Amino acid sequence: MKISILGCGRWGSFLSWYANKQGHEVLLWGRDASQNYEKLLQTRKNDYLDLPLSIQLTNNLDEAIALAELVFIAISAQELRSFAKQLNSMKIANKTFVLCMKGLEMSSGERLTRVFMEEIQQPVDVAIWVGPGHVQDFVQDIPNCMVIDSDNINITKLIVDNLGSETIRFYYGEDLLGNEIGAAAKNVIGIAAGMLDGLGYSSLKGALMSRGTKEIARLVKAMGGDEMTVYGLGHLGDYEATVFSKHSHNRRFGEAFVKNEPFEKLAEGAATVKALLQLSAQYDVELPICQAVNSVIWEAQDAREQLIKLFMRPVKFERI
Amino acid sequence: MKISILGCGRWGSFLSWYANKQGHEVLLWGRDASQNYEKLLQTRKNDYLDLPLSIQLTNNLDEAIALAELVFIAISAQELRSFAKQLNSMKIANKTFVLCMKGLEMSSGERLTRVFMEEIQQPVDVAIWVGPGHVQDFVQDIPNCMVIDSDNINITKLIVDNLGSETIRFYYGEDLLGNEIGAAAKNVIGIAAGMLDGLGYSSLKGALMSRGTKEIARLVKAMGGDEMTVYGLGHLGDYEATVFSKHSHNRRFGEAFVKNEPFEKLAEGAATVKALLQLSAQYDVELPICQAVNSVIWEAQDAREQLIKLFMRPVKFERI
Repeated sequence: MKISILGCGRWGSFLSWYANKQGHEVLLWGRDASQNYEKLLQTRKNDYLDLPLSIQLTNNLDEAIALAELVFIAISAQELRSFAKQLNSMKIANKTFVLCMKGLEMSSGERLTRVFMEEIQQPVDVAIWVGPGHVQDFVQDIPNCMVIDSDNINITKLIVDNLGSETIRFYYGEDLLGNEIGAAAKNVIGIAAGMLDGLGYSSLKGALMSRGTKEIARLVKAMGGDEMTVYGLGHLGDYEATVFSKHSHNRRFGEAFVKNEPFEKLAEGAATVKALLQLSAQYDVELPICQAVNSVIWEAQDAREQLIKLFMRPVKFERI
Repeated sequence: MKISILGCGRWGSFLSWYANKQGHEVLLWGRDASQNYEKLLQTRKNDYLDLPLSIQLTNNLDEAIALAELVFIAISAQELRSFAKQLNSMKIANKTFVLCMKGLEMSSGERLTRVFMEEIQQPVDVAIWVGPGHVQDFVQDIPNCMVIDSDNINITKLIVDNLGSETIRFYYGEDLLGNEIGAAAKNVIGIAAGMLDGLGYSSLKGALMSRGTKEIARLVKAMGGDEMTVYGLGHLGDYEATVFSKHSHNRRFGEAFVKNEPFEKLAEGAATVKALLQLSAQYDVELPICQAVNSVIWEAQDAREQLIKLFMRPVKFERI
């Protein structure tokens, strides 16, 4: 197929490398001023991979859109709305878009497929690509399992049929809402995990996994999704990469934050936690772990106190 | 309370240390010929802790039973039946027994509380103590959350009220079957995790968590328990300690096994997996991860092939 990838950060450039490896005609787009783009243009490599010459590079969005049947988007979640507005000014009817990032709109709590479709007034299909996987592993052919989800099973299958391989084995998702919320929320659990690591309480990450899945499952259920989706690859299945891996941006951010160490920029989970608290209020669902992470990052509360309070509340029944 | 701990391995000796710290009158029993017992008797310490002088040590089981209102048992799961027979020959009516080990009877697939009660013809109460927690952490006051479960909520509460602390925060379990199966089965998932580590596929531990919880939840449901118990502290909540920790016996055993490195002895999960396959047949529930672990350990199948087959099966719906 003809595939354009919009966004040439770590994940976008990997997607182009991977789609090319599966035999597709691939174009990778980056913003003109983007450092990632300039580096790829000059060296055709980044810290993770070398781009084969058969992958076209462009900073011309019109060209990238014109070529593609399938468009992967891998930009910052908070920039999706303005980017979608820009795409809507182009001729995109009947194309299929795959959102390859994990997040929620910070100001509204809105899911990314909703944000996207609110800005697109043309008939397009939209899907998401979520689940675990390190670029570092995939480029060495170390396999993993991921999920494609959309509201249209034919679109889901089209993407899986064209992109599945021995390296990435896809499952068909069947709960777009649950997978979007779950994939976004795992970044917040990742920050909490980093905070526990930073405070010397790594062994509480077991309880964090059990309690974290439970609160996100409650939210998904209240929103009309399937609570069991949270225990699938999109959320729990991504905990290895997010809660335990030294590569995880969100975990590392949480750890640096509680140790008062410098961090490059806010992790995506710092925006997502604000969105989740909007949803918590909207759907009247308590999210104690998200609340604690929010209070530490955004309200300058003491991390040790908040996290100990969280796990060491008075005795109670586990199911509540 | 007057508490006897039967078994003076790592966990039993910790339980005596901990119960003593909570202000109880504690007696720790070990077998005469046991190296652990001899070492404690001579040095009053082991690799993890120093035993205060206020903890009595004995190798006289009659004495240990006579003293105690509450009896903790922390011996090898496979030895429980013969040990229970021995206990039944003593005067144990109206005492409360807390089983502090995780396993299933290899030959029958039977849960430990059932094995125990099958051999005891006197009116006693029985509970279990499960969930995450490293002795190494607890002796440094690094806290964790654990679970007490029994068929009698008054017994559950009695144990929690007397043993809960700032270091161990207990939840009341409400599904004895689910917690017993879950606590035992996590050792098998731990072995699978070690095998993935040993083969260089650590990043598949995310998928392992998602698929592992799901297959054990299916079994618990088929047996009449609550599938959600598996996602609580007793199973999923113990994955940090079992799937990720370098201290985990089962994980280390799995890793050594696939690398053909020597290991001290079979991990508990190697017995448990046989029991789980009995339950799989009895209740007609597929357990593909357990099946794979069993085929590698007991049927000399190739680990890489079995595990890749497991995670890389043809595309399908995630919920199946």
